[in-house]
Amino acid sequence: MSFIPIKPDSDFPIQNLPYGVFRTADRPNEYRIGVAIGDMIADLSVLATQNVFASDVSNAFKQPNLNAFMGLGKKSWTSARIVLQRLLSADCPDLRDNAQLRAQVFVRQCDADMVLPANIGDYTDFYSSRYHATNVGIMFRGKDNALQPNWLHLPVGYHGRSSSVVVSGTEIRRPNGQLRPDLEKPPVYGQCRLLDFELEMAFFVGGPDNAMGQPVDINSAEDRIFGVVLMNDWSARDIQKWEYVPLGPFNGKNFGTTISPWVVTLDAIKEFKIKADQPQEPKPLPYLDDGNHSQYNIDLEVSILPEGGSEPMHVARTNARNLYWSFKQQLAHHSSTGCPMKSGDLCGSGTISGPDVGSYGSMLEISWKGTKPLKMSDGTERKFLKDGDTVMMRGFCQGDGYRIGFGKCDGKVLPAVRV
Amino acid sequence: MSFIPIKPDSDFPIQNLPYGVFRTADRPNEYRIGVAIGDMIADLSVLATQNVFASDVSNAFKQPNLNAFMGLGKKSWTSARIVLQRLLSADCPDLRDNAQLRAQVFVRQCDADMVLPANIGDYTDFYSSRYHATNVGIMFRGKDNALQPNWLHLPVGYHGRSSSVVVSGTEIRRPNGQLRPDLEKPPVYGQCRLLDFELEMAFFVGGPDNAMGQPVDINSAEDRIFGVVLMNDWSARDIQKWEYVPLGPFNGKNFGTTISPWVVTLDAIKEFKIKADQPQEPKPLPYLDDGNHSQYNIDLEVSILPEGGSEPMHVARTNARNLYWSFKQQLAHHSSTGCPMKSGDLCGSGTISGPDVGSYGSMLEISWKGTKPLKMSDGTERKFLKDGDTVMMRGFCQGDGYRIGFGKCDGKVLPAVRV
Ligand SMILES: [Ca+2]
Ligand SMILES: [Ca+2]
Ligand SMILES: [Mg+2]
Ligand SMILES: [Mg+2]
Ligand code: NI
Repeated sequence: MSFIPIKPDSDFPIQNLPYGVFRTADRPNEYRIGVAIGDMIADLSVLATQNVFASDVSNAFKQPNLNAFMGLGKKSWTSARIVLQRLLSADCPDLRDNAQLRAQVFVRQCDADMVLPANIGDYTDFYSSRYHATNVGIMFRGKDNALQPNWLHLPVGYHGRSSSVVVSGTEIRRPNGQLRPDLEKPPVYGQCRLLDFELEMAFFVGGPDNAMGQPVDINSAEDRIFGVVLMNDWSARDIQKWEYVPLGPFNGKNFGTTISPWVVTLDAIKEFKIKADQPQEPKPLPYLDDGNHSQYNIDLEVSILPEGGSEPMHVARTNARNLYWSFKQQLAHHSSTGCPMKSGDLCGSGTISGPDVGSYGSMLEISWKGTKPLKMSDGTERKFLKDGDTVMMRGFCQGDGYRIGFGKCDGKVLPAVRV
Repeated sequence: MSFIPIKPDSDFPIQNLPYGVFRTADRPNEYRIGVAIGDMIADLSVLATQNVFASDVSNAFKQPNLNAFMGLGKKSWTSARIVLQRLLSADCPDLRDNAQLRAQVFVRQCDADMVLPANIGDYTDFYSSRYHATNVGIMFRGKDNALQPNWLHLPVGYHGRSSSVVVSGTEIRRPNGQLRPDLEKPPVYGQCRLLDFELEMAFFVGGPDNAMGQPVDINSAEDRIFGVVLMNDWSARDIQKWEYVPLGPFNGKNFGTTISPWVVTLDAIKEFKIKADQPQEPKPLPYLDDGNHSQYNIDLEVSILPEGGSEPMHVARTNARNLYWSFKQQLAHHSSTGCPMKSGDLCGSGTISGPDVGSYGSMLEISWKGTKPLKMSDGTERKFLKDGDTVMMRGFCQGDGYRIGFGKCDGKVLPAVRV
């Protein structure tokens, strides 16, 4: 228990303590690292002056982003968590009874503006839900060839555009791009007509960084994962369709990717690590197999709030356990060539669809390529996203009497620039 | 003419003045911006203290990388060039006759260690030589379907891995990866057997940066290009082949990409801008057409120096004019969705193959998929690269009595890590 009041449905009890970067209106140029607790943020740039952390941790907490802290590695992350849980607990007087320090440390979340938690050097997106890959495969290649031959052997992924990763709340402009809606006619440049979301989780890479040429071993891969966020990989299906053969998605993806601002550490969700539901068959090659195939039990949902609407409508409910490849397998595969994985790099899981209608993580699947429009509660229909729609993603691990929540991953669609 | 002696075949006469970042053994932690002149480097962190540049330029030249200078934009780049050409010219006494300042400013290139010129936020690789795309298409799909339907309509590209971009001289370890050499058998994890180079040019993006959602107009795209380098996009053909459908090249590319350290500005090569040889038919859509389709006349070559060899052997001679899509078209297309293009981002041209045998920019094409081994001058054969091979790329624009050269883009292949 913390001395900070925590509502029962709060995303941020003392068991969570996710890290983020914020600023306040009175100091707009100061990006400060904080940890969420209830409705408050504990400003770690202040606590870093109090001789409570190891000196490298204190120095890292004075930085304007989490890269340095992410770089310190697992031991430092766990130590800092222990210190923070003690300082914030109802039993510890050090902060609780120091009114002056408390006034300096705590900022209300409603008074803070969250920014990207890290300087993201590289962003990669995987494609690791078998249900999603199968749905997409059936739509585009038919039932018999739904999965590509490589899919069960390796976590398929592609390099994404880190400059386009933004934090929850950032509005997303519907992109223009080159499309070919009618294959009998030449392509055109115009606004995306098939704008979609993709419900994903993403992990931030932590250090110490591997040297170029040195793979990250599957048995230690988890130590290189700092924490996890929600991610909406906005996708322009029509741009993607015309461009993606043979070199993969490019402009169909690089106009915006939204993440939740609070990075939930692996320590915070370790009780929700479970034996994977889906056995991996064929058995993965040794570089992808630590004999301990696991996933995280994280409930996930997507809602859409239409322009001017009052009530967001749930359009998908799924769970991170629906992933086939795990975060550690993704990291081991990514670095298997010796690719340098750096602190602050971001890796998306791929769209997390489950087995059933209602658990699909994209409009492409929900509307089955636009053939089954979704009835919204305001009477309108959706095949893909409309201008003014706000897409809202949420996630949490349900503990016994508490939740490890992920905060908000929201974005509103703005109309395209006129061309 | 400069008061610094310039050999007739120097890459770096006063007409060039490329920018780079270097350090010296006595000050290994100080990354300094310099400009190459003959065999020397003029240390701009020193000149920046001399009240010769505008104050924003001076500040930018005191930084440990070129990002800030790249961000200042075209007008500042051109002004700085004018100042440098004056200061370095034989007619100007200011630096020439100031022995004390000269001693501080000039560092011999042989005493300097070049590092990456910029912090590369994002790296993209295009695929813009029609000859190359056609060769690859013939090999994999046959003559009739060599070019994909989109290829003549847009500059196909994919996002690459910025953490793996290194500067000339960095050794490249042959990657391990997942391969399927025999399609009748399961894939294996092992060393790349089909290691290749790709001869490319790459441009650095400059500012002012476009806001997310705002495309860069084709008519001003050139102002967003700071300068150009040579690039070797090392490629693991067997890893790439097994992984790349449907999301494109990933581990086949992310183990290393080498660039030359000196960024040659567009001002330095503007006299070598020529009307493009290859008419674009179909006519590009308006967002890709400024009515002034041009390329650069830059001679390019690749040599291989085998382990212990004394003489590098030329394996390719081509020219940047063999590109079909131009740098400005690549940039306009990349940002057409509103993708944020940031100062210091790097965009590779794609392998620059010409029409003839001898002008192919990769071993894949030179050995025609390994079916026509190349005879080396030491009697050995090459289908792909061997451990110990040093791949050397060079390029220059031939002026009247001078050369605008690009310096070295070299890398030696180290044996794979044992797995
Ligand atoms: Ca995705
Ligand atoms: Ca390439
Ligand atoms: Mg996206
Ligand atoms: Mg490469
Ligand atoms: Ni030569």
